[in-house]
Amino acid sequence: MDQNILKSKLETALKVGKPAIFFGEVATYIPELRNVNKDDLGISVYTKDGVCCSVGDCDVRFTMQSISKIISLAVALEECGFKRVFSKVGMEPSGEAFNSLVELDLNSNRPFNPMINSGALTIASLLIPKFTFEEMLEYARILCMDPDIDMNEAVYKSEMDHVSRNRAIAYLLESKGIIESDVEESLSFYTKMCSLNVTAKSLANFGLILACDGRHPETGEQLLQNEVVRVIKTIMLTCGMYDGSGEFAVHVGIPTKSGVGGGLMSVVDNRMGIGIYSPSLDPKGNCIAGRPILEYLSQEFHLHMFDHQDEKE
Amino acid sequence: MDQNILKSKLETALKVGKPAIFFGEVATYIPELRNVNKDDLGISVYTKDGVCCSVGDCDVRFTMQSISKIISLAVALEECGFKRVFSKVGMEPSGEAFNSLVELDLNSNRPFNPMINSGALTIASLLIPKFTFEEMLEYARILCMDPDIDMNEAVYKSEMDHVSRNRAIAYLLESKGIIESDVEESLSFYTKMCSLNVTAKSLANFGLILACDGRHPETGEQLLQNEVVRVIKTIMLTCGMYDGSGEFAVHVGIPTKSGVGGGLMSVVDNRMGIGIYSPSLDPKGNCIAGRPILEYLSQEFHLHMFDHQDEKE
Amino acid sequence: MDQNILKSKLETALKVGKPAIFFGEVATYIPELRNVNKDDLGISVYTKDGVCCSVGDCDVRFTMQSISKIISLAVALEECGFKRVFSKVGMEPSGEAFNSLVELDLNSNRPFNPMINSGALTIASLLIPKFTFEEMLEYARILCMDPDIDMNEAVYKSEMDHVSRNRAIAYLLESKGIIESDVEESLSFYTKMCSLNVTAKSLANFGLILACDGRHPETGEQLLQNEVVRVIKTIMLTCGMYDGSGEFAVHVGIPTKSGVGGGLMSVVDNRMGIGIYSPSLDPKGNCIAGRPILEYLSQEFHLHMFDHQDEKE
Amino acid sequence: MDQNILKSKLETALKVGKPAIFFGEVATYIPELRNVNKDDLGISVYTKDGVCCSVGDCDVRFTMQSISKIISLAVALEECGFKRVFSKVGMEPSGEAFNSLVELDLNSNRPFNPMINSGALTIASLLIPKFTFEEMLEYARILCMDPDIDMNEAVYKSEMDHVSRNRAIAYLLESKGIIESDVEESLSFYTKMCSLNVTAKSLANFGLILACDGRHPETGEQLLQNEVVRVIKTIMLTCGMYDGSGEFAVHVGIPTKSGVGGGLMSVVDNRMGIGIYSPSLDPKGNCIAGRPILEYLSQEFHLHMFDHQDEKE
Repeated sequence: MDQNILKSKLETALKVGKPAIFFGEVATYIPELRNVNKDDLGISVYTKDGVCCSVGDCDVRFTMQSISKIISLAVALEECGFKRVFSKVGMEPSGEAFNSLVELDLNSNRPFNPMINSGALTIASLLIPKFTFEEMLEYARILCMDPDIDMNEAVYKSEMDHVSRNRAIAYLLESKGIIESDVEESLSFYTKMCSLNVTAKSLANFGLILACDGRHPETGEQLLQNEVVRVIKTIMLTCGMYDGSGEFAVHVGIPTKSGVGGGLMSVVDNRMGIGIYSPSLDPKGNCIAGRPILEYLSQEFHLHMFDHQDEKE
Repeated sequence: MDQNILKSKLETALKVGKPAIFFGEVATYIPELRNVNKDDLGISVYTKDGVCCSVGDCDVRFTMQSISKIISLAVALEECGFKRVFSKVGMEPSGEAFNSLVELDLNSNRPFNPMINSGALTIASLLIPKFTFEEMLEYARILCMDPDIDMNEAVYKSEMDHVSRNRAIAYLLESKGIIESDVEESLSFYTKMCSLNVTAKSLANFGLILACDGRHPETGEQLLQNEVVRVIKTIMLTCGMYDGSGEFAVHVGIPTKSGVGGGLMSVVDNRMGIGIYSPSLDPKGNCIAGRPILEYLSQEFHLHMFDHQDEKE
Repeated sequence: MDQNILKSKLETALKVGKPAIFFGEVATYIPELRNVNKDDLGISVYTKDGVCCSVGDCDVRFTMQSISKIISLAVALEECGFKRVFSKVGMEPSGEAFNSLVELDLNSNRPFNPMINSGALTIASLLIPKFTFEEMLEYARILCMDPDIDMNEAVYKSEMDHVSRNRAIAYLLESKGIIESDVEESLSFYTKMCSLNVTAKSLANFGLILACDGRHPETGEQLLQNEVVRVIKTIMLTCGMYDGSGEFAVHVGIPTKSGVGGGLMSVVDNRMGIGIYSPSLDPKGNCIAGRPILEYLSQEFHLHMFDHQDEKE
Repeated sequence: MDQNILKSKLETALKVGKPAIFFGEVATYIPELRNVNKDDLGISVYTKDGVCCSVGDCDVRFTMQSISKIISLAVALEECGFKRVFSKVGMEPSGEAFNSLVELDLNSNRPFNPMINSGALTIASLLIPKFTFEEMLEYARILCMDPDIDMNEAVYKSEMDHVSRNRAIAYLLESKGIIESDVEESLSFYTKMCSLNVTAKSLANFGLILACDGRHPETGEQLLQNEVVRVIKTIMLTCGMYDGSGEFAVHVGIPTKSGVGGGLMSVVDNRMGIGIYSPSLDPKGNCIAGRPILEYLSQEFHLHMFDHQDEKE
């Protein structure tokens, strides 16, 4: 892909996304999350053929929040195996908000999927007997090709001060025999992962590794197994945007994971990774500028998984 | 009421209830609760006109469990006032099991009533800034006219080892701003109250005090306000037998509170208190022998709240 | 009871209830129900010792709506027997709005109770093989001691034009094998019963018959069996005011059934029937003036089921 | 693709799928659906480069059932427009069984998606003012390239005799203002569409048209708009296999729609259509042999949407 064309399209994309910011709100349920610049907007793209391009606020650090669920899921699948992981967590979209307890209490012996909080807490409980947080941090740095990722202490503390609902979910999971490790450790591990500080660039990097089936785009090193990456991309597609995932898949058609910190990581399979940062959120908790930006890029570059225009040209 | 007639009817009631024991199960969700004699059965009655009569295992000590919710509610109403208490907890039957989280999460800004776990934990959170557990223990001794009531340490510890679901409920309450005191303290306070060791006799005593609108049947001392007792009796009637309360009200018609320790406390308004102990439970968690026993007594003595046969005789 | 004292208290009660009317709304979900005078207010009392007293708009005719569920339940219990009826409908408060389908679909093989629409439609399906509507109309006239009761054709037609939700409930009941008679006939039978035109006086009459355990207060004729009436009073107490029943039982303590036509029928056991008419409703669908009026009367005359002041005086 | 290789792989696929048949059950909720040969199994493939290959029972006619939801959705999107359709129906997986009423009643002003019954009934209500059933039948014949498709009268009648639950859903939709056309007509239109008689071959044909973005594979005629087809494929992927869609997407990764008649239609984007017939169903209502067959083919031919092995070879 031509760098100049890409740059020019991304600049248009910035303009397409900008007006949406006004209609969203930054996350306020945790005090520390309010300390962001609502108007920040950055888009970063890294393509399989080696083109990098960033426009806007792509070096601003923000916390991964739910995007870290992808890292934890990847490591859990690599290290605990598919069978163990999916005996504890399902793969179905839930039709519920990300922090609901209802489905879990009513119907099931396992959380619907690893992208809702109950699922991610369960994944955390599988990881803590095997990995320290420092080791997970190292994973995050490698997968995002970003050695500067660190935990945002202020956000971590602030989240732990407002963690009652997740704590409720975690103890409910324990009461059902789903979490078998220490609940408080699982909770703090999960919250630390949420507090990792990344940039739009880091997310584009991570996206590209997933687009390349787990291989490092430069060294070719296989960082994640092919099968693990395939599962992750599918789950991102069906569950990555909370209870707006279905509509997003229809209109954008790119596996994407959002976080309430304002980040979006998109994986255009076999082609590119896209990272977006903009902390103004829509009512479902997804970065509100992301949708118009990705819809625009999807149309311009034929990125929808069921669009073959590109191949025909 | 004639003591001999009462004695003879109670002995028949024992025989009426006995066969049901076989069809129930003792509570097993907490290991220590299993350490009971499943076949134990005792009925104790204390009437307004001073007749006491006990048959069967009326001196066996067992833990109050949910019956302690009545004591906590009574003290909360006395000391925090109706307005404060009912701003935090409702008075509606929930149609749900006693430990459900669903209604709470879906619909409401307060637990449905003080007889389900979410409501009782909320009441505990209102009490802890005002009362030590020792003071509550003293209340229990007075209201049950039983100075030997103590906390069963083994049951308390065992319950605290299996308290995940209640802990989940408690943190969910905190996340909704319903519990404002310390969650762990509320939880341990609530669990201590559940672990109070009573007998069928203690429950008959407590029942009589409620039947007498809060007055001590011997000294005449007003232990609880008339209005408080009226509220309690009504809530016992509509919510006292978990999600079997409606059917129990129809068939038995006596305000009654059950506990998974096997106790039942019944209040025949203006006439008598009845205490029953039998640890074999029906699937809803109510003492399984209690229903046939109380139905029998209700018919024999016209105890149903809407039965006036007695007055006509 | 002294007629003059009663008259004077009822006049005060009118004044107590009047201001609430402003805060309610007449039912609007059916066009024809809007054709009422929102400010109408009438209270009628008929006591066991033969005192009749009516104040305000006690001769205005309005449709029974849900109050007819009591007549249908009474006849079903008399003619089909307890066993048959309660194999099809439960006796538990549902914690849900009167027209919910959720509990029914999720949990159960029978409606929670006969006071919610699903339960009442089921009762209707039990009655239609045995009774014509004309026979039920006759029952209504007898039980309300009001030979002028008739069906309000305009309301009936208007309701049948807006019956989709009840039709949905009825077909769901059929799909679960709960309704075995013709669904459309059950639906129209139920709706006709709702459209019976009564007055506050008729409701006081009906209430008194229930207060007298089913006997006609003048002739002494046993119109309903004692046991049937006991069941009805209990169910009115626990389920009569929709999902506000629990709170109403606590504060008022009188078995009462409401209808969205604005009627209330109260049964002060062994003492009196009370009929109220005021079409301004609270958000749960209960006559909004009824609560303060009945709370006032309950306090003045010690009508709460757990208030014995009267006996002591 | 080489016809012989394809043939040989399909024969292996038959063997892979066969043993699963034993563990499933044919649909029994409608008597007429039982009249099938449980052991029938056929797989038909039609590729973009013109290769047709069928093994097993590919000429047996069976009813489309839910697969017809795709035809109705396609026509609705073509003729009513995206805006109108998606104002009435969402695009989110529901996490519920296909015939649930709960989500609809609790949360929403529109059905979650067009693949659950509430959504499909809504689509039917949009179509009936514009199309006769005969016109829809003609659409079906064209899209399946099968002029012999007809309505199975016996199944249609049998379904209409057991349609209570769908009728309940339809009236609930009317009560919420979602269905604005005649409910009974919508219901019968929907049921007729379900009763269309197809073969595994017809489904492979239809699948190929969708794989070719709506173009007829032989004439090149654009039968459906590109955008419509993209939406359909995405919704098939996220919602096509009832509440097993998420897991199916992960393991198989091919947009697929199932019907309780035993059919499966799969769309391997830009490559082929696959039709499967086997009336033995898993507990979620999906053809039980379909999963192992499609997993096998997905692996052999790299058909998973996130598998690029093929391109690399």
